[in-house]
Amino acid sequence: MVAINPERLLADLERLRRFGACGTGVVRRSLTPIDLEARHWLVSRLAEAGLDAGIDGLGTVFGRSKKPGPALLVGSHSDTQPTGGWLDGALGVIYGLELARALDENPATRDLALEVASWIDEEGTFVGMLGSSAFCGELPPEVPREARNAEGQSLEAALEAAGLAGRPRATLGSRPYLGYLEAHIEQGPYLEEEGRRIGVVTSIVGIRSFDIVFEGEQNHAGTTPMARRRDAARALIALAQQLNVAFAAEAGPRSVWTVGRIEVEPGAPSIVPGRAAMVFQFRDAEEDRLDALEAVARRLVGEAHAAGPIRVSIAPRHDHTRPAVMDAGLQRHIAEAAEAHAPGAWTCMPSAAGHDAQVLARHLPSAMLFIPSIGGVSHDFAEDTAPDDIVLGCRVLATAAAAILKQAC
Amino acid sequence: MVAINPERLLADLERLRRFGACGTGVVRRSLTPIDLEARHWLVSRLAEAGLDAGIDGLGTVFGRSKKPGPALLVGSHSDTQPTGGWLDGALGVIYGLELARALDENPATRDLALEVASWIDEEGTFVGMLGSSAFCGELPPEVPREARNAEGQSLEAALEAAGLAGRPRATLGSRPYLGYLEAHIEQGPYLEEEGRRIGVVTSIVGIRSFDIVFEGEQNHAGTTPMARRRDAARALIALAQQLNVAFAAEAGPRSVWTVGRIEVEPGAPSIVPGRAAMVFQFRDAEEDRLDALEAVARRLVGEAHAAGPIRVSIAPRHDHTRPAVMDAGLQRHIAEAAEAHAPGAWTCMPSAAGHDAQVLARHLPSAMLFIPSIGGVSHDFAEDTAPDDIVLGCRVLATAAAAILKQAC
Repeated sequence: MVAINPERLLADLERLRRFGACGTGVVRRSLTPIDLEARHWLVSRLAEAGLDAGIDGLGTVFGRSKKPGPALLVGSHSDTQPTGGWLDGALGVIYGLELARALDENPATRDLALEVASWIDEEGTFVGMLGSSAFCGELPPEVPREARNAEGQSLEAALEAAGLAGRPRATLGSRPYLGYLEAHIEQGPYLEEEGRRIGVVTSIVGIRSFDIVFEGEQNHAGTTPMARRRDAARALIALAQQLNVAFAAEAGPRSVWTVGRIEVEPGAPSIVPGRAAMVFQFRDAEEDRLDALEAVARRLVGEAHAAGPIRVSIAPRHDHTRPAVMDAGLQRHIAEAAEAHAPGAWTCMPSAAGHDAQVLARHLPSAMLFIPSIGGVSHDFAEDTAPDDIVLGCRVLATAAAAILKQAC
Repeated sequence: MVAINPERLLADLERLRRFGACGTGVVRRSLTPIDLEARHWLVSRLAEAGLDAGIDGLGTVFGRSKKPGPALLVGSHSDTQPTGGWLDGALGVIYGLELARALDENPATRDLALEVASWIDEEGTFVGMLGSSAFCGELPPEVPREARNAEGQSLEAALEAAGLAGRPRATLGSRPYLGYLEAHIEQGPYLEEEGRRIGVVTSIVGIRSFDIVFEGEQNHAGTTPMARRRDAARALIALAQQLNVAFAAEAGPRSVWTVGRIEVEPGAPSIVPGRAAMVFQFRDAEEDRLDALEAVARRLVGEAHAAGPIRVSIAPRHDHTRPAVMDAGLQRHIAEAAEAHAPGAWTCMPSAAGHDAQVLARHLPSAMLFIPSIGGVSHDFAEDTAPDDIVLGCRVLATAAAAILKQAC
């Protein structure tokens, strides 16, 4: 059995955490100076693990194996949300690093080819799942020019500033792959509530998100009579409330929907807002339900626009993802490893969060392993997992990876 | 009759417009470098008009008359909204400048004492009606330390940066005043719709505004089931919609209410917002109706908080103002001057916007004159008034001011 090194694993997770640490949380948005520092550190660690490592032309860190034969790809992402937790993404990347070292240290697994990726911008600072989409050949060519961060900087400009413009991009076609494994914290409450320590992911939800924009007329908040107003914020409030009510009726048992961003312009107490915008996102594991929910959103927007006097428009954002089913064979390997290390303390479950694995799953057999999130908290500075669970997850993934690679020999 | 100089009046308005010009609009928020430049220019113009002019310790520009006897104070404000129009405030200040010159040029009025003020921060970059409140002794001593602009800078720090810290402040007690006159664009549609060119203001609405804050729990927008969420934005949307519906039922014929600012934190598409805030403002000319509307707002906030699971709180902002009745004697002088210059083309009307005159009205006989706003548009770059109306307004104000001063001699 492959032996991972728990102290080394936890030390590297803590080291990565310090890049952008903010209290117990981390602020390490894609292609910021601190994110780039973390990527350079990761390259050096992967090189020490014997991999041919580098940063590609979009920012993805890739550690290629020098060993021949079909390879297993293991990874996740090291960028964070604007106010992120320390394990989201980072866990799966450091698991990949530790697996490469552990396999290399064991004579029985030394010849197996394991590669490691930290995909750029899973969190969508510019465009969600950027690195994995590009790796799989799914990135529309206009994206680097068009995608912008919240400060208005284009991806192209950020790559230029980072010194990455013009570098080659990692692609799927460079060698044959057996599959892709991604470990992640659950980010939800189910494992903890059910007293399980490992989740074997069966499918990943699809995400649809939309910019809904309201254009009215900016005016004085004292002298403009209510009947003459074309108040963009008032229209946004009414429609957002309608969406929340209508989605509750149309939703499935695991559907979720969120208004995560609202902007009102100019945003002054004494001015009737002339423009307002919201981001409306919803998720479900079933494509049909996503279609039905989108139809509800489009109908309500259309009705609001037709009623006037505010112009209301809806446009899909770049970060749509389709639901993805995980590979049955790889799931079985993870389940067997989980049963070996934690008998009876694992379960099968869908992923309610999007992950790079759902992009890879359209091109390679892919699977995911979850470990519990304390209190189900994620995308927050308070995000955490017990060290024993972190170590256990890595042991299970290492055992599964070795078995997958050995079976192919 | 006092003769104002129309070309000089319009040229000075255009000169002031260039400080912070942005297309047809103006961005000249209180105590910004461009606002200070405009204030220094205004000091030099007032000095050329024979006044003893300077900037006081809060930023108010004050032009004192060197002539003895009771004085008439004329003014308005030269700061703007974040995206403001060119006449809002500026008009009344330049009228004051032109009146000082016109009276001084005419042997019959040369000995009359007219003083001019450009009150700092009427628009509330830090705190609304700052200059007039301080002049009248109404400014709580903690305000300079506590009031902050949208960037989080305190008023105290802004005054320090502007080189104004420690200067004396202009106060009402420095000499006897006959009263205060303020001219302003209407900022609403009534004069234009009724075909009138001058409005004699009878009263000014009171304003109440509140910060309503929602505190929930930030979490992942995919993995947090709907039933477990404590979504601050969702709570804000529901309450804002309730307020809009309930106010429509409780409002008087001229009541207005506005959600002018909404903030959602952290504002990312994939994060359930943990905190949200809105500014809710309403206006009416009757104190009783303001009380009734405030009771509705407080009741709905209390119900939302009690229902949980989001903590909802409501707190009054600094920029509350009470309704104010304009002085009958001064109104009569303005009405007589209006009838002389524009027979039948004037009307009496309330002001739906707040003005420094409502602060002054608690301490001095005060009155206001309105000229039409094209299309009723204000607090917007498109704000404008026909030059003929601008000139007429200044003629009426000059005639009224001379009559008020002469009557007192």
